[in-house]
Amino acid sequence: MKETICAISTPPGIGAIAIVRTSGTDSFPIAAQLFPQLDLLALPPQNARFAQLFDNGQLLDQVVVTKFAAPKSYTGEDMVEISCHGSIFIQKHIVELLVEKGCRLAEPGEFTQRAFLNGKLDLPQAEAVADLIESQSETTHRLAIHQLRGEFSNRMRQLRERFVHIASLLELELDFSEEDLEFADRSELKALLDEISEEVSRLIRSFKLGNVLKRGIPVAIVGRPNVGKSTLLNAILQQDRAIVSPIPGTTRDTVEETFTIDGTLFRFIDTAGLRQSEDTIENIGIERTRRAVEQATVVLYLVDASNTTLDAARAEMREFSENAGLQDKELVIVANKIDELESLPADYKEWHDMGTLFVSAKRRVNLGDIEERLADYVKRHHIQDLSLLTNERHYALLCDIETAIGRIHDGLEMQLPTDLVAEEVRAALHDIGLLTGTISSDDLLDHVFSKFCIGK
Amino acid sequence: MKETICAISTPPGIGAIAIVRTSGTDSFPIAAQLFPQLDLLALPPQNARFAQLFDNGQLLDQVVVTKFAAPKSYTGEDMVEISCHGSIFIQKHIVELLVEKGCRLAEPGEFTQRAFLNGKLDLPQAEAVADLIESQSETTHRLAIHQLRGEFSNRMRQLRERFVHIASLLELELDFSEEDLEFADRSELKALLDEISEEVSRLIRSFKLGNVLKRGIPVAIVGRPNVGKSTLLNAILQQDRAIVSPIPGTTRDTVEETFTIDGTLFRFIDTAGLRQSEDTIENIGIERTRRAVEQATVVLYLVDASNTTLDAARAEMREFSENAGLQDKELVIVANKIDELESLPADYKEWHDMGTLFVSAKRRVNLGDIEERLADYVKRHHIQDLSLLTNERHYALLCDIETAIGRIHDGLEMQLPTDLVAEEVRAALHDIGLLTGTISSDDLLDHVFSKFCIGK
Repeated sequence: MKETICAISTPPGIGAIAIVRTSGTDSFPIAAQLFPQLDLLALPPQNARFAQLFDNGQLLDQVVVTKFAAPKSYTGEDMVEISCHGSIFIQKHIVELLVEKGCRLAEPGEFTQRAFLNGKLDLPQAEAVADLIESQSETTHRLAIHQLRGEFSNRMRQLRERFVHIASLLELELDFSEEDLEFADRSELKALLDEISEEVSRLIRSFKLGNVLKRGIPVAIVGRPNVGKSTLLNAILQQDRAIVSPIPGTTRDTVEETFTIDGTLFRFIDTAGLRQSEDTIENIGIERTRRAVEQATVVLYLVDASNTTLDAARAEMREFSENAGLQDKELVIVANKIDELESLPADYKEWHDMGTLFVSAKRRVNLGDIEERLADYVKRHHIQDLSLLTNERHYALLCDIETAIGRIHDGLEMQLPTDLVAEEVRAALHDIGLLTGTISSDDLLDHVFSKFCIGK
Repeated sequence: MKETICAISTPPGIGAIAIVRTSGTDSFPIAAQLFPQLDLLALPPQNARFAQLFDNGQLLDQVVVTKFAAPKSYTGEDMVEISCHGSIFIQKHIVELLVEKGCRLAEPGEFTQRAFLNGKLDLPQAEAVADLIESQSETTHRLAIHQLRGEFSNRMRQLRERFVHIASLLELELDFSEEDLEFADRSELKALLDEISEEVSRLIRSFKLGNVLKRGIPVAIVGRPNVGKSTLLNAILQQDRAIVSPIPGTTRDTVEETFTIDGTLFRFIDTAGLRQSEDTIENIGIERTRRAVEQATVVLYLVDASNTTLDAARAEMREFSENAGLQDKELVIVANKIDELESLPADYKEWHDMGTLFVSAKRRVNLGDIEERLADYVKRHHIQDLSLLTNERHYALLCDIETAIGRIHDGLEMQLPTDLVAEEVRAALHDIGLLTGTISSDDLLDHVFSKFCIGK
């Protein structure tokens, strides 16, 4: 029998109302002791009732209490939700009372873990709950909702079915192995394997992007000193201060801010100016700038439109590209300070053909063009695809599965004994089991649920 | 017809779950648009239902939704409570959707204001809701609960009845005024007035204490440099770090921390060491120390037990008392650093007779004695009395009533015309009406409810 657990489930702090909840077999009798004036045991489930909550005879609060009866509850167990006044004193006191009456404080994620153990959610769905709570943007929210609805789990089940099919084809061969006869037509098997391989590789490739989406697509703002990098960063952020947030744990020497554009979170990284020494930009070596560019998915390269010729800009960019390693990165040239120009440059067309955006960070002119370019990048790269991998645990297991697929493939190619190949298939099936949670261990569950917040 | 309002009602931030709620005539039809798969209008009230919440066709979240039908709701209006996953994105998005469908964002305290306007609470009860949410200790919590239960309102109603009685006695006189005959026996009238006067004065006197309780009873830690003041503060606080909190807005040059002892909040103020100049402590003038002592209800005066003789301590204390103005303050002498003593001082009995507490802040010896002394102070001063006045608005009105009582008293003494006296009685009745909210204005309500948090 599981202990009955309790926790404050609303965000920490003072608010109009807060929720304390319990889950477990003794939820009703324990909570009933807090409501001497109410017959909680007789209260129908899912019925929200105004009630006086007492601490051993003293009125503690006027609350709304709701029972949820197993299995029709979040955890699948008997649950009680107490919606109290959101004072920290009251919240803590109710938890203390519940503990006094026989509850145990819930561990992080323990409510959701119980929901998993009681079959209300599979493991990827449970993991999606944590992602959902932490989602900061439309894109990460959509990925989490998609996973919570079981779409990823379905995909994994389909993958599993194909492996099972492969296994059955191999079994068939094994039955005949004594005759040492490879009679089966392996083309079906290989076709199946290719399909699986493609799907798994695509998911693995999508992880980098999916992971980047969670933290925000990194955009490095790069350029020589005084071209207006920090001004640009501030200007972009101040367009809508409300959804800007500093990333905690950012090292002090780089300025990072996240900002949502068109539903996708971007992480802007301001960098130190690229120093000019001689006439090359060899000093790209400023370590933090190098790191920022290395991390970046998009590089906004700023030049000062008021004093840079097209040729100079091209030379500068060439140097930068050669030194910075821009493979796979989206490079956007931004000509800043157009407020200091009397008219568009004569060679505007050539600038434009390089994809240059003309802006004034100071006067906030054309900043929308930068946002549009970033939103466009998201569209072009199908970042809004709902089947992106965002979970590190899933990624690691899929990498193992990919390895197994490689071995199965090689085994078939090299005509290895069928039972050796079958063993690799079983390994892959085991990994899928770990993925969806049909196979689980205490360690695995601890690993998954310890990342949750308390009360979920 | 009142607009339908909506707000996030749980504390700001990320949590397992959060609650968004609406109140107003259109609550049901507006919220129904978020639940295309559920017939919200047909859902029985107070029934918590699991539901899919859609943003125009896109699944936004899986939530629990509960309807409360007027007048059986907190505000007395139709209300919908949506218990969603506590991601900031989801919380904000649901509010945005509700606004898109026709809600208006609630002003601070607007839910409670509507509860008041719909007769669910009187004004002191509504004010108690704000106090309850902000209560940090058992004592302030108990005062707020007491007021929320209507005890203060009852007391005001009784006060009102007595004034009404006085008014009726005066009316009786007025009826006979043409005969210019003071026939009524004024002894009943005077006895009534004395009763009222005593009650009102007691409440007014209790305000200083009640107000102090809200912020924490101020305890100044005072003494010469290096007697261990900061060590003592830290030692007291670290006894139970969990319920220590720094007070926001504290000026940088004094260290203030609140700490709950035996259910009462204390506010400890560390001070700069009293400097020694010549052989007097004339430099008590260090401004911040002077201010700390001025504010304090209790002064912990520290001496270094390891190097202070009884006579020296007495002289030091005398100087301090003369300079610091200790009227009405509780002075506790604390002899610190007993860990550096080999044995108790020979004159221990005399120290003890002065009420000295012997402690070692460094080794955390006998700190419980200090807590006990403070808890005892609370008991001796009946701070746990439930009829303490904590609300500034009530205080101001009661002061006005006290003035009116004085005028009525004087009028009776000086045999002023009965109608002049009756006018003062009407003024007092008006003030009581403002107190309980039977008389109210938009300004008054704005004043009261603007102090609330949004969502309450």
